[in-house]
Amino acid sequence: MIKPRTASGTLELLPREQVVFQRLLDIVRDTYASFGFMPLETPVFELSEVLLTKTGGETERQVYFVQSSGALEKNEPGLPELALRFDLTVPLARYVAEHEHDLAFPFRRYQIQRVYRGERAQKGRFREFYQCDIDVIGKDSLSTRYDAEIPAVINAVFERMQIGEFTIQFNHRKLLRGFFETLGIEGTQQDAVLRELDKLDKRGEAAVRDTLVGEGFGLSADTAERLLAFSRVRSVSHEDALAKLAALGEGTAMFKEGRDALRNTLEQLKSLGVPESRYALNLSIARGLDYYTGIVYETTLDAHPGIGSICSGGRYDNLASSYTKSKLPGVGISIGLSRLYWQLREAGIIEAGASSVDVLVALMDEADLEDALSLSQSLRAQGLNVETQLEARKLAKQFQYADKLGIPYVAMRGGSEREAGQVTIKNLKTGAQTAMPYNGAQDAAAVARYLKGDA
Amino acid sequence: MIKPRTASGTLELLPREQVVFQRLLDIVRDTYASFGFMPLETPVFELSEVLLTKTGGETERQVYFVQSSGALEKNEPGLPELALRFDLTVPLARYVAEHEHDLAFPFRRYQIQRVYRGERAQKGRFREFYQCDIDVIGKDSLSTRYDAEIPAVINAVFERMQIGEFTIQFNHRKLLRGFFETLGIEGTQQDAVLRELDKLDKRGEAAVRDTLVGEGFGLSADTAERLLAFSRVRSVSHEDALAKLAALGEGTAMFKEGRDALRNTLEQLKSLGVPESRYALNLSIARGLDYYTGIVYETTLDAHPGIGSICSGGRYDNLASSYTKSKLPGVGISIGLSRLYWQLREAGIIEAGASSVDVLVALMDEADLEDALSLSQSLRAQGLNVETQLEARKLAKQFQYADKLGIPYVAMRGGSEREAGQVTIKNLKTGAQTAMPYNGAQDAAAVARYLKGDA
Repeated sequence: MIKPRTASGTLELLPREQVVFQRLLDIVRDTYASFGFMPLETPVFELSEVLLTKTGGETERQVYFVQSSGALEKNEPGLPELALRFDLTVPLARYVAEHEHDLAFPFRRYQIQRVYRGERAQKGRFREFYQCDIDVIGKDSLSTRYDAEIPAVINAVFERMQIGEFTIQFNHRKLLRGFFETLGIEGTQQDAVLRELDKLDKRGEAAVRDTLVGEGFGLSADTAERLLAFSRVRSVSHEDALAKLAALGEGTAMFKEGRDALRNTLEQLKSLGVPESRYALNLSIARGLDYYTGIVYETTLDAHPGIGSICSGGRYDNLASSYTKSKLPGVGISIGLSRLYWQLREAGIIEAGASSVDVLVALMDEADLEDALSLSQSLRAQGLNVETQLEARKLAKQFQYADKLGIPYVAMRGGSEREAGQVTIKNLKTGAQTAMPYNGAQDAAAVARYLKGDA
Repeated sequence: MIKPRTASGTLELLPREQVVFQRLLDIVRDTYASFGFMPLETPVFELSEVLLTKTGGETERQVYFVQSSGALEKNEPGLPELALRFDLTVPLARYVAEHEHDLAFPFRRYQIQRVYRGERAQKGRFREFYQCDIDVIGKDSLSTRYDAEIPAVINAVFERMQIGEFTIQFNHRKLLRGFFETLGIEGTQQDAVLRELDKLDKRGEAAVRDTLVGEGFGLSADTAERLLAFSRVRSVSHEDALAKLAALGEGTAMFKEGRDALRNTLEQLKSLGVPESRYALNLSIARGLDYYTGIVYETTLDAHPGIGSICSGGRYDNLASSYTKSKLPGVGISIGLSRLYWQLREAGIIEAGASSVDVLVALMDEADLEDALSLSQSLRAQGLNVETQLEARKLAKQFQYADKLGIPYVAMRGGSEREAGQVTIKNLKTGAQTAMPYNGAQDAAAVARYLKGDA
């Protein structure tokens, strides 16, 4: 006998939890689709040679390789042929480069699949987790207007999830680098400063200041202070964001480019009707990944800042330079849904919900089976999810069963109901029982309306 | 530069194909849910020790093992810790055994995920493919009534898919084994005969007859002929199925048990309103897998018998004997959706469809941007999937783009439309243009109805 258990670092749910998770997945998918993104799915494994082109040792240590038992036995030197994707960006790059001539640009896709990282498992860190990505990819060029569409989508997603108020915060790499230029910070030192500022959250201002004025960087105390002051900029409203951008003063051409792009993004968010409480400037956001070149986004729950960013992304100049000579600029964002779900559950914001089943059709007597089956089919035809009890057992047992599963209603139609031309509906939450007219499929619509809460 | 490509034996789709595939997935999911099955997802990898308990060398050769780069470097002897699931049945068994005390029985779940087999890739055979499973698991016992519910679900799934007429065919292991008993075939010889009859499709009657009367089996010519005659039984209607069961005559207790179960299943399918053209007895169905113990199902497309079974399953006595002492009988069925999609496409039954985007909001002039954004949001609020052109370009280019993506309508609202309080809708299929009143969000419902084809 083998002890049944899952690998550590995976998130497996009980049925009523799975229904909640599925609802979140559906909200993400439906919202992404409503903004005109089309679905994409890629294989869970990529050829190792294709997957690992751009990545350094850091990423490679986190990759899962895949080998059939045959290949394992051969034990050939070198990397195995296949590896599990560790994000959805590399598969997107490979896909766009591979199918470039079959796609229409700008190419807009959403992709909601699991990704894999060979990390040491710890609480709340997963080795398998869902990412929910949208990206818009241009050919040769892509207007910065797409920068504003992304937060509009994310606003709609989290609004529908009803997980409390949230703020989509953004910064701009060109504003940052332009500001560095005005301070005389150039070239590779810009990257180093960027990476250092990215640590503000974790290390705190004092430690970062020490590093910036220390040996490696050698910045003046005044320069360090101006960098930190810049990083502290946060807006609290639409007008405040515009005012704070203006208050930054003038700068290099790159600085102005970043500032103007952010101004346009702010204006478009207004046109798109995104509430101004939902977006803000946050000039401390750097996003460690080197490939971002324009706007960068992070999203936080207002009541749970400790959870950190629940949705991040940005703009990049060239998606697929490892695979094609075509220039493919893009902008995108990703929700790490497994981690978000886990954190919301830990914080008590979501809990196991109702069943996906709307009603249980009970069976009290073997003689009622045919009737129970046809009642069930009639209610299904009205769009309800219906489970039929196929074995007659005590009603109390059937109520208990429905209650454990989170099924809200039980429908009963025994001999007495048939004689009276009725069906009895029990609401398991209130305990109330209601008799409704029912003589066959023609009466199912009214019963279904009642069960859907419309009546 | 690395050539972008996918691993062989995977099915990756272009956007308009993916929309079609997604529609099939949604039909399966919605239909499974409508019959009161709840969703389940399990991790893509299981602990090797847990996954490979019951399986022999045959299965093990087809398993994909997973190792992080760290584990790969260590190159320790023995099987890697993790392996990709090769079906959804073993993960279900592990799940039910692991969570037995948190589940309500009968446990009804659907699971729609990809599975992995390390097979040599060949046309139409996939190393990664979707399985769409439903199972009902009882604790200690499970009424044979659930045997009839499964084909009712499958009938609803394929009816909604509109892929042509189909027949769900079934046989019963007890009828088969009972019939063997009446012929004096007992014990392990039953298994051997079962496996041989399972090859009728591939080898043909003459070859199977030769084997049955040959050295290994040593059956008489008469016995072999009676086995083949039994295998030829097919019903063409509900009454014919009952008549053909009656015509089999009497037999052992086991034979009668199988026959009575099939009779009950036939009666319930009628109560469930399944058209009698959609189900039939087919006493040649054996299903090679040893663990089936009752009814067995296969489903074929009437116009494409060559495709073979598109959906198979059956009843088993004990799901999880490797993991728990509890007796867990069940009945289930599986649709291999990747293979089905591929075959339907090859046969020309389905083709790339319309976009998931309902309407493209065009942009003819930079000055129209704000209006285009708010029109888009108003239509989204009416439940439409809307893409906005964010860069003004020639209308002909925008029509071309929409057409390539399969977007059916383009909405235009330039200066002249704004003055007239209108929006112009172009139907890309017919080329027809229609002007509709539009002065803001309050008019969006009527436009949306038109675009949905309700007006």
